[in-house]
Amino acid sequence: MPDKEEFVVTPYEVRGKIDYNRLREQFGTQEITPELLARFQSLAGGSLSPLLARGIYYSHRDLGTLLEGWAKGTPFFLYSGRGPSGPLHTSHLVQFELCRWIQERFHVPMYIQITDDEKFWARAGLSREEITRWGLENLYDILALGFDPKLTRVFFDSRSIAALYPLAIRVARKIPYSTVKAVFGFDPSTNIGLVFYTALQTVPCFWPSWAEGRSVPCLIPCGVDQDPHFRVTRDIAEGLGYPKPALVHSQMIPALSGEGAMSTTGGPGDGALFLNDPPTAIDRKIRNAFTGGRATVEEQRRLGATPEICSIWALWRTRFAETQAKFEEVTAGCRSGSLLCGECKSSLLERIHPFLRAHAEARERAKTWAESAIVTEAPRPI
Amino acid sequence: MPDKEEFVVTPYEVRGKIDYNRLREQFGTQEITPELLARFQSLAGGSLSPLLARGIYYSHRDLGTLLEGWAKGTPFFLYSGRGPSGPLHTSHLVQFELCRWIQERFHVPMYIQITDDEKFWARAGLSREEITRWGLENLYDILALGFDPKLTRVFFDSRSIAALYPLAIRVARKIPYSTVKAVFGFDPSTNIGLVFYTALQTVPCFWPSWAEGRSVPCLIPCGVDQDPHFRVTRDIAEGLGYPKPALVHSQMIPALSGEGAMSTTGGPGDGALFLNDPPTAIDRKIRNAFTGGRATVEEQRRLGATPEICSIWALWRTRFAETQAKFEEVTAGCRSGSLLCGECKSSLLERIHPFLRAHAEARERAKTWAESAIVTEAPRPI
Repeated sequence: MPDKEEFVVTPYEVRGKIDYNRLREQFGTQEITPELLARFQSLAGGSLSPLLARGIYYSHRDLGTLLEGWAKGTPFFLYSGRGPSGPLHTSHLVQFELCRWIQERFHVPMYIQITDDEKFWARAGLSREEITRWGLENLYDILALGFDPKLTRVFFDSRSIAALYPLAIRVARKIPYSTVKAVFGFDPSTNIGLVFYTALQTVPCFWPSWAEGRSVPCLIPCGVDQDPHFRVTRDIAEGLGYPKPALVHSQMIPALSGEGAMSTTGGPGDGALFLNDPPTAIDRKIRNAFTGGRATVEEQRRLGATPEICSIWALWRTRFAETQAKFEEVTAGCRSGSLLCGECKSSLLERIHPFLRAHAEARERAKTWAESAIVTEAPRPI
Repeated sequence: MPDKEEFVVTPYEVRGKIDYNRLREQFGTQEITPELLARFQSLAGGSLSPLLARGIYYSHRDLGTLLEGWAKGTPFFLYSGRGPSGPLHTSHLVQFELCRWIQERFHVPMYIQITDDEKFWARAGLSREEITRWGLENLYDILALGFDPKLTRVFFDSRSIAALYPLAIRVARKIPYSTVKAVFGFDPSTNIGLVFYTALQTVPCFWPSWAEGRSVPCLIPCGVDQDPHFRVTRDIAEGLGYPKPALVHSQMIPALSGEGAMSTTGGPGDGALFLNDPPTAIDRKIRNAFTGGRATVEEQRRLGATPEICSIWALWRTRFAETQAKFEEVTAGCRSGSLLCGECKSSLLERIHPFLRAHAEARERAKTWAESAIVTEAPRPI
């Protein structure tokens, strides 16, 4: 383990306790300021996604430019993706929930990439069959968030390769091995699929411009660990004649164990709320979850608890506090000691169960149009 | 330039004077012995391709095993390819002429790969448009050699990627960067496309086995410079459950200038006979070609000439001596001094011109079925 002061954040490794301000400096990204948020809110018609209002999205690249372009009549599109290694948990939704919110307010196209090739290359223990099965399952969950079938397209890498590859050929020539070695920390044992892969994660950023024969800006909501891919993209964009994608970065959502980020594979199964968990598992996981509470009720009443380190508070924050007022009430109650952890968990469970039931229904509806959203043909031959 | 003793042979660099025996030892391949040739001839119905009979194919891997398998009822298939960087010259035909001869005698399927992605990655100066245009032009020339439309399929990489990629994903996971670095001499400036590419050159070796769900052996006639790709293939074959491909290797055909191999891009334009050269250019190139002749007629009559270093003799050897008797007559005349270089060139030109005219006609017929031979769909989804 690294020292407490040290942390590593790449698409293939997240460890240590992340200092988000230092990470912003390391990566050279911009802070999402109150002024920028106010502008976003105004262009969005007056409301703001909780994910933005509560600071989960905390950093960006060129968001201001993209929004001002939109205000002046230049439409953009959204792009985000998923490497399908297992079932989705609630933290995986963070990027897609923001995309859905933006699509609803700005009526822009959304491109979802399912990177079944990357996961096979990155995880020696997974079979192609498992990964492609999870790819479809994950896609249903993502579409179920409420994306507009008329505005939403999917690149399922192994099935969309004919659509992606002609542009990937051009992209890959621009990226030397030395770049991926430095950016992703690859070593000589890294397989040549994973070495190549970042070219395919770049392609969707340029694809609508390529398809439409004009410059279409791209906005990517993603976990900050994915930023390295798009630094590479941004470095080569101009040389290929395409606009640099803009990004908004979310913090990593803490695991229910309180250690590290929620992870499909990293932690124990009880570290995350999977969308396909049965209700009894949800109850157990929430009841066992790490909180910011004190050792005794008496102490907590007297000193209050610490929301910033609490995995339960993180859930209220991302989506389960349905209003800003509710979120502030929970936060204040926690900090003052008036809200005890058991009560807080019960109240949260009253929201999680209906959320997952509604999600399961929406998922069945998403299955009816998922296949038709997958792009399989290139817009032009070369 | 390396010392006379040194030479380098990889798919991306051929330089120095090649010692084929040493190369066979370096690469660890087997000699094509007279016994093996006799067996090949017998299984082929009694005749032998000039390319085999005259020693242009000089080395192999597992050819004996493949032939004995065929004799016992295990069919194989042929695979060879072309990186389309410009027009084909006569030396490019060597591998496809052997394939065509084998297809005719053994009635086996032929898979031709046009590696337009690789050429774009390997040659910074070429555009995608140029390469894909040459890809089609080269394909017409190859098919014109007389391949059977019912038995011949084409992987045109950028257009066949949906057919190739699912298997390429599995192949690429087996190949670490360290392998391609060592085998191809890549360095950190090599682009990630070229790093990945060898996976796509391996796929056709396994594709029929994958498509048919049973083990189908593969025979690859190729220039010895392509052997490194298939060493990688052979190393990973068993781990993927496929048979190792067998190979037969041809020597590099000398340039008309006498220096190095015939090359589309390496030497001056007059170093090679392009299939699309006008008759006047052919005449000029042959008249100017380097021979093994002496400084004066008198000296040549007295001492004889040296066929082994002669670019004209190399043309007789590959295909223009229509019988073994004719080939031996030219060789003996050259060595004895009875055949002077001017006469020899005239006699060769009388064969080259009709060859190219007949080729141009066959090429027009090949255009009618080339598109239908291109494979665009995977045999199975994952």
